[in-house]
Amino acid sequence: MIYIPYETVTRTLSDILVDRGFTTNRAAMSAGLFADANRDGVLSHGLDRFPSYLAAMEQGLVDPAAEPELIWNGGALERWDGRQGPGNLNARSSMERALELSDMHGIGCVGLSNTNHWMRGGNFGWQAADAGKIGICWTNTMPNLPPWGSTKPLIGNNPLIIAVPREAGHVVLDMAMSQFSYGALSRYSIEGRKLPVPGGYDEDGNLTDDPDLIVKSIRPLPIGFWKGSGLAILLDLMAALLSGGKATCDIVPNPISDTGISQVFIAFAPPAYPGLADRVIESLDVNNGENERAAAIRYPGRKTLENRRKSLETGLPVDEDVWKGILALT
Amino acid sequence: MIYIPYETVTRTLSDILVDRGFTTNRAAMSAGLFADANRDGVLSHGLDRFPSYLAAMEQGLVDPAAEPELIWNGGALERWDGRQGPGNLNARSSMERALELSDMHGIGCVGLSNTNHWMRGGNFGWQAADAGKIGICWTNTMPNLPPWGSTKPLIGNNPLIIAVPREAGHVVLDMAMSQFSYGALSRYSIEGRKLPVPGGYDEDGNLTDDPDLIVKSIRPLPIGFWKGSGLAILLDLMAALLSGGKATCDIVPNPISDTGISQVFIAFAPPAYPGLADRVIESLDVNNGENERAAAIRYPGRKTLENRRKSLETGLPVDEDVWKGILALT
Repeated sequence: MIYIPYETVTRTLSDILVDRGFTTNRAAMSAGLFADANRDGVLSHGLDRFPSYLAAMEQGLVDPAAEPELIWNGGALERWDGRQGPGNLNARSSMERALELSDMHGIGCVGLSNTNHWMRGGNFGWQAADAGKIGICWTNTMPNLPPWGSTKPLIGNNPLIIAVPREAGHVVLDMAMSQFSYGALSRYSIEGRKLPVPGGYDEDGNLTDDPDLIVKSIRPLPIGFWKGSGLAILLDLMAALLSGGKATCDIVPNPISDTGISQVFIAFAPPAYPGLADRVIESLDVNNGENERAAAIRYPGRKTLENRRKSLETGLPVDEDVWKGILALT
Repeated sequence: MIYIPYETVTRTLSDILVDRGFTTNRAAMSAGLFADANRDGVLSHGLDRFPSYLAAMEQGLVDPAAEPELIWNGGALERWDGRQGPGNLNARSSMERALELSDMHGIGCVGLSNTNHWMRGGNFGWQAADAGKIGICWTNTMPNLPPWGSTKPLIGNNPLIIAVPREAGHVVLDMAMSQFSYGALSRYSIEGRKLPVPGGYDEDGNLTDDPDLIVKSIRPLPIGFWKGSGLAILLDLMAALLSGGKATCDIVPNPISDTGISQVFIAFAPPAYPGLADRVIESLDVNNGENERAAAIRYPGRKTLENRRKSLETGLPVDEDVWKGILALT
């Protein structure tokens, strides 16, 4: 691992994107989203994926200049066509639109079709919470997870993000419906680590904690067995129905990245409820010095905040080989 | 197990509720919701709970006559006060209102405070899907699940329902954030069965498939370990923030039932997308006669439909002791 100042990372990525046809503004926005992922400790969905982001453009899967287009307005619910633009920029502008709709209607929802991999989904949760709103978003994916009872990858792991604003640090959940996302499996593999709990099956149908065997079998384990499998199916149905776009069964698997996918962005603007989010987090006992386990109690966002604090001191953690690969692209 | 005609069940329950102060209409509605749960095979959240439904009224936790009151309108998002009315009737009218809002705005959301246990949450998903809409609802609960990293029950298992309409049978997910709900644990216990996968810890901290030991330790396992724990925290935060009601940390544990809780109801009315839901379900391979595992592939609602078909032939399955107990109340 090496540590690089935030500005060095964003400048480097931004220059590469401008070279590839991004406007200055869009290049800076995209570079910032990649850098934010590493800043927050989510290397798997940050700079690790920058080469595949470029490769998808080179292969014509992603149009760097395309911006989403409104295709249906139902009041507080809208459908937008992502026109195969960059997934992270499409997602950012869709959450922005959901936030605007929530200002007008109390709640706002955007269904986005024809978009591409959004890289780190958590970014768009933080975006909503930074705007003082509750945000939910999710994406479908290519088939990459067997439904419960099957051995074939027929459903997607469909990451879900839920964000609640809090002055002391937002509470942001960012999770795939598989126990480990493919990005997480790849990170465990790169670091030569086993998974902390079995994450799927090997090709012989045995449960395993070896990330490489799960990537090979395409048989990750859904969270909660039949429950995560069911939730993945419903998230996929909703993404397609709300956006008018493709469901997982319509998405052609692509070795580079998810492409032509569907996403949902919802923002909520309820009246203020001062102190509630703090009270809930404090009730988890995380600040109880007498409880030796307090430091181990997890809530969504806790680790993100610790990682962010560290990164601002040391620079962003970046995998050394990944950084060398990116510098070779300049 | 005994099998009783739907009408006998609803008449019996309805008479008891009228005796306890329900209007005829509200008694019939409530009785129907209980009967629907058994009809669909969800005994744990149907007639099994009818005695506790009455007990909560006898103890003054539930006001049989109270109806929800609008306390804030933000356009497509509203807050309603459940005024400690019966949880199943409050939930039903809140989903009805979310459906109305979705007709006006494309999406509608109701946050409901001061309500009581809704019995079978899936009913309100079916309600939305029967109206041709996508429905999501969830509830918080008393503290009954340890957050990941803790041994103390500080969060709720917060059941979540997502429903998508489909002509051949709606797709309806109804799941607690614990691997097994307390209702499910109780059903396994009554039937003398072990859980199919470990469902929590015993009081010594060992994983166990014994439902009674988990009820005793109050340490069920969240789905996906840290992931289900995180999702439960976010669902609780949202329920309190959207309704202006209590979060799990504010809810006083009650041995009879959850009381004074917060719920969320969301309905979506996107443009029609003919055939999509069928295509997604068919893609799961469930109808593939050549695939010997096809019958085992699960999707949310599959078993419900099979149970419903059987119940309409045989009568509703009802636990014999439960039915005796109910007859003793008439």
